Amino acid sequence: MWSILILVILSILSYLVTDELIPKLKDLFIKAGLYGVDLCKNNNKKIPEAIGVISGCVFLVTSFIFIPTVFGNDLIERELFPHNEFAELLAALLSICCMLLLGFADDVLDLKWRYKLLLPTVASLPLLVVYYVNFNSTTFVIPIPFRQWLGVSINIGFLYYVYMGMLAVFCTNAINILAGINGLEVGQAIVIAASIIIFDIIELRGDQFKAHTFSLHIMIPYLATTLALMKHNWYPSKVFVGDTFCYVSGMTFAVVGILSHFSKTVLLFFLPQIMNFIYSVPQLFHIIPCPRHCLPKYSAEMDLLQASRTVIAKKDLTFFRKIIVQVLTILRLIDKVEDKESITINNLTLINLVLIKLGPMSEDRLTVTLLALQCCCTLLAFLIRYPMASYFYET
Amino acid sequence: MWSILILVILSILSYLVTDELIPKLKDLFIKAGLYGVDLCKNNNKKIPEAIGVISGCVFLVTSFIFIPTVFGNDLIERELFPHNEFAELLAALLSICCMLLLGFADDVLDLKWRYKLLLPTVASLPLLVVYYVNFNSTTFVIPIPFRQWLGVSINIGFLYYVYMGMLAVFCTNAINILAGINGLEVGQAIVIAASIIIFDIIELRGDQFKAHTFSLHIMIPYLATTLALMKHNWYPSKVFVGDTFCYVSGMTFAVVGILSHFSKTVLLFFLPQIMNFIYSVPQLFHIIPCPRHCLPKYSAEMDLLQASRTVIAKKDLTFFRKIIVQVLTILRLIDKVEDKESITINNLTLINLVLIKLGPMSEDRLTVTLLALQCCCTLLAFLIRYPMASYFYET
Repeated sequence: MWSILILVILSILSYLVTDELIPKLKDLFIKAGLYGVDLCKNNNKKIPEAIGVISGCVFLVTSFIFIPTVFGNDLIERELFPHNEFAELLAALLSICCMLLLGFADDVLDLKWRYKLLLPTVASLPLLVVYYVNFNSTTFVIPIPFRQWLGVSINIGFLYYVYMGMLAVFCTNAINILAGINGLEVGQAIVIAASIIIFDIIELRGDQFKAHTFSLHIMIPYLATTLALMKHNWYPSKVFVGDTFCYVSGMTFAVVGILSHFSKTVLLFFLPQIMNFIYSVPQLFHIIPCPRHCLPKYSAEMDLLQASRTVIAKKDLTFFRKIIVQVLTILRLIDKVEDKESITINNLTLINLVLIKLGPMSEDRLTVTLLALQCCCTLLAFLIRYPMASYFYET
Repeated sequence: MWSILILVILSILSYLVTDELIPKLKDLFIKAGLYGVDLCKNNNKKIPEAIGVISGCVFLVTSFIFIPTVFGNDLIERELFPHNEFAELLAALLSICCMLLLGFADDVLDLKWRYKLLLPTVASLPLLVVYYVNFNSTTFVIPIPFRQWLGVSINIGFLYYVYMGMLAVFCTNAINILAGINGLEVGQAIVIAASIIIFDIIELRGDQFKAHTFSLHIMIPYLATTLALMKHNWYPSKVFVGDTFCYVSGMTFAVVGILSHFSKTVLLFFLPQIMNFIYSVPQLFHIIPCPRHCLPKYSAEMDLLQASRTVIAKKDLTFFRKIIVQVLTILRLIDKVEDKESITINNLTLINLVLIKLGPMSEDRLTVTLLALQCCCTLLAFLIRYPMASYFYET
């Protein structure tokens, strides 16, 4: 356990370094043309973009420096060195490093969608090989109520690897689409990271303590550097985090979920992201017209954010579109205004949904509301994972 | 050996993909502000920079896809899986991926020198841990003539790790400073890579065949993607390769040298880079004034390149400077013009040295001349490594 103590000290240092580096380096980003304007503010200040690359690099460097400590005792007796665990850590860092590169390239070059889907899949390949040689458990345990039909467990074989590859793609993109207001990307990542750390600490006394120690080795420095990033990204943002941050975060969560065998629990922590993804599907796949930005609309007079809207001309109202609008109306998930020629609905994002349910609010209150929702989902996840799990699985 | 065959086929594919991607993506780079103007040409065309990131990414992806093949047989019998070799490959790819990220960040953000020296050191850390647990041989065998004083071998312990860390820093920066004319960075990297591949093939029948197979696994896809890059970077360059390429290349050579235990042979292949580095030291450390660019001077009338020059005012001619100029004059390594108030000498780079020895020449002829020199050094290296080695070491 003393290795965790060293890690905490290293992580505090990495927090301080990140906090120091961000204001020092941010002019370099503006000079390189990496900046944006905050669409929810009254001014046109240039705000540096892609600053997630700084916290990501410090996170990686901290993990590198920590390697000799992780294997401290094993380094003395080299015959017993756990090469498989070392390969696990290296594969994890390799996948994260790849996403850092891809994210930064995306921020600089504005890559096409196909690369965004293809490259995380490739980046997760070393991870899958490690999983194959170290575990290769491709079995899902079936919840008790369904066992009469499906048996105790089901081995999905190769499909399990497809599932893990898709998990990496999903996690990297899910954070990226629940974004757009100050502090939200970083805030949700902090809540998820903290949830995973709490879960690890609870499970440290269980028989999977090795897997959970591994998870802590990755999550603690991640959380520290992300907290430093938060300090500069909180409302009103002095820096933007960019796709870089979302990609690195998503991959970090996926890596930990896969290699520590609790990918289903990680998905429980991703509930708001999953809801947002499902809710956004009609616009993501352009079934319903999607404007360039689905951000909430900033009203300068009130200094409040309102849900942004999209217009569907009635002549373009295909059967499929009509069904979707009707279902969403019945579920009370959209705010619809109809006139003779067109239907106007809010853009389908969780952020806009909160705004139509709770009314216009200021940007920081909106972020806090969404993060509170994220925390509630974590509580729900723990409820499902612990008290309720006994209904579904033997404990 | 069938895995090498698959690798060759994969590498041919990676050549084709790189060749296809470069013209497709280069406008993205110009749009992102990543372009330069060719200082040795008559026009002011925008030429995309940092294109080395494309070949580097394809190289990495190829290596990822190749992983299941490398361990093909071992994947079937998982009990005997060589976790240590797998960790070796992962550490190699991790170090290369880090340099790709650092190089690209440097091209975009124009990082300060301290980061350029610090980060390759950190990036080589996983490599050193792998070396420690897999080999930890820190012994130099002493050449026969010196054994009467130093013994048969000398164990330098921790210093060996410092040497390997410095090798990574040296290799990444050595290619970067022998650069500036079309095709030279890529050309020298191709000659070095080809030399290493020839060396590996010669040694495949020896007792170190495993290490040399490992080296081939890295070098073959590297060479293929670099050849594709060369096609677009050759005179007149349609793309520039950027620091990205130099960093990735240097780290790739260092990784292979360290993990396949022939770092001294790799250094032999780096002879022109070492000569250039030593020759440049007085200007690199600003002992002699160094202009922003040490590139040769382009004369538009003649369409030829001439050595560029630097001026030292006689009143600034300190004792130390005087000594350096005198030594270089005696060694006939500079072209010096003196007048009452100042001394004018050529900038201290190998490129300028070739120009003062052979006279002004066109850019493509200059590149060919320097690459011919690189090939001669490879021949010399093989001469030292094979016929002459028996004078220094038992065979």
